Amino acid sequence: MEREFPQLNSGTSSFYATAVVPGGCSVRLDATEKHLRPGNTVSGPSLFTLADIGGYVCVLSHAGPDALSVTTNLNINFVRKAPAGPVDGHCRIIKLGRSLMVFEIDMRAGAEGVTVAHATGTYSIPPKPK
Amino acid sequence: MEREFPQLNSGTSSFYATAVVPGGCSVRLDATEKHLRPGNTVSGPSLFTLADIGGYVCVLSHAGPDALSVTTNLNINFVRKAPAGPVDGHCRIIKLGRSLMVFEIDMRAGAEGVTVAHATGTYSIPPKPK
Amino acid sequence: MEREFPQLNSGTSSFYATAVVPGGCSVRLDATEKHLRPGNTVSGPSLFTLADIGGYVCVLSHAGPDALSVTTNLNINFVRKAPAGPVDGHCRIIKLGRSLMVFEIDMRAGAEGVTVAHATGTYSIPPKPK
Amino acid sequence: MEREFPQLNSGTSSFYATAVVPGGCSVRLDATEKHLRPGNTVSGPSLFTLADIGGYVCVLSHAGPDALSVTTNLNINFVRKAPAGPVDGHCRIIKLGRSLMVFEIDMRAGAEGVTVAHATGTYSIPPKPK
Repeated sequence: MEREFPQLNSGTSSFYATAVVPGGCSVRLDATEKHLRPGNTVSGPSLFTLADIGGYVCVLSHAGPDALSVTTNLNINFVRKAPAGPVDGHCRIIKLGRSLMVFEIDMRAGAEGVTVAHATGTYSIPPKPK
Repeated sequence: MEREFPQLNSGTSSFYATAVVPGGCSVRLDATEKHLRPGNTVSGPSLFTLADIGGYVCVLSHAGPDALSVTTNLNINFVRKAPAGPVDGHCRIIKLGRSLMVFEIDMRAGAEGVTVAHATGTYSIPPKPK
Repeated sequence: MEREFPQLNSGTSSFYATAVVPGGCSVRLDATEKHLRPGNTVSGPSLFTLADIGGYVCVLSHAGPDALSVTTNLNINFVRKAPAGPVDGHCRIIKLGRSLMVFEIDMRAGAEGVTVAHATGTYSIPPKPK
Repeated sequence: MEREFPQLNSGTSSFYATAVVPGGCSVRLDATEKHLRPGNTVSGPSLFTLADIGGYVCVLSHAGPDALSVTTNLNINFVRKAPAGPVDGHCRIIKLGRSLMVFEIDMRAGAEGVTVAHATGTYSIPPKPK
């Protein structure tokens, strides 16, 4: 996984993919001090990054390893405070078309694995060279 | 169900709840001519209405029959054309707090039940009178 | 305007464009009884429809009269109750590309013209036939 | 500004507020190497952070310096590649209520100051202690 997606771990091992399945994937953030904001909860940008990486792993694994895919939209709801420790993002591809991929990701944390954030997003997939 | 949620069917029987379960509900739109737009696909406003009703049924059934709850945010992705006929919305409550409820709804249609639209939204729940 | 955009007024004169300017447009909903929900405020689906129409007028006027453009995403925030009467939507095109248009719309109502809802959305523009 | 909002600059001077006006504010990201992703464009998480900070400066300056305000929703559209250099975020408060603030932010970059991203978001404002 690391060899396939080196860009996820550039300079850090905080974010990584844990599974790729047909129609989705799982990604994890091992939240440490630097991902926290005042109140000792995982920061919004850290959770946004996890969501974005989840979509990226879905695109790479389902539409081909095309580094030019870019996020065009991401909508995220923060619903509970997330403590330091692992945050698991479970991604589902809602639609994989030729030029767009829409996905959702449920981010869970804590001993009981409750949802701390949920996001939906769109990746634009560039046309294949002929 | 009709007696409990008469507002869903005011003057029409196109939208209705089909199930309420712990943590979610199912709602349906029986899409007819008037819900279609050019191209004979179910219109965006009709799918938005289905999503909004799904959230409303979740609020009514899980937070109490409080008519003052209002939608504050709704984000919807349209991913495939939906033909005339039933569109089934499967709702999941992501977070039910004292003042906000966040939910998602997957809307499926056609013989194979593929996702045609997906939405997440927030309802504001007014404080209970003391 | 009516001849150019007949689809806006199919069977009703509630929704119409009031201005098209470079980079944007204005649209209006004359909200009557049928657009209200309990509490006598303009319903969410009616404001969603206004937002969607605003984007559609932007696409038609800026990318060409192509009936195949479709909404792929719409995010709407409802911030104040809107009374019966005119609701004016002021649209700005954020990005007009070859295959996507992103826009925002500020919807104002009442004597003081305060914002009642705000939306951003994306239209997919089909490739031109060669 | 730095004394008032030290949390914006913790360990970095990349993000800062440039203006606070009635009903809004301006914030800036001085994008350097570490904010870029492959393709030498400013990364999504960096722009998300700018948007989130814009909302935070709006809350602090308009609702009072209450560190407990948290983002509950953020929807962001990425519309153009942003080069290294300053990215200016212009924030407008759409609604400031007792418990919620809704804002939008237009993020502009490059010599011509074109929009590279646009976001809308909601901050939850905790009740004042009595």
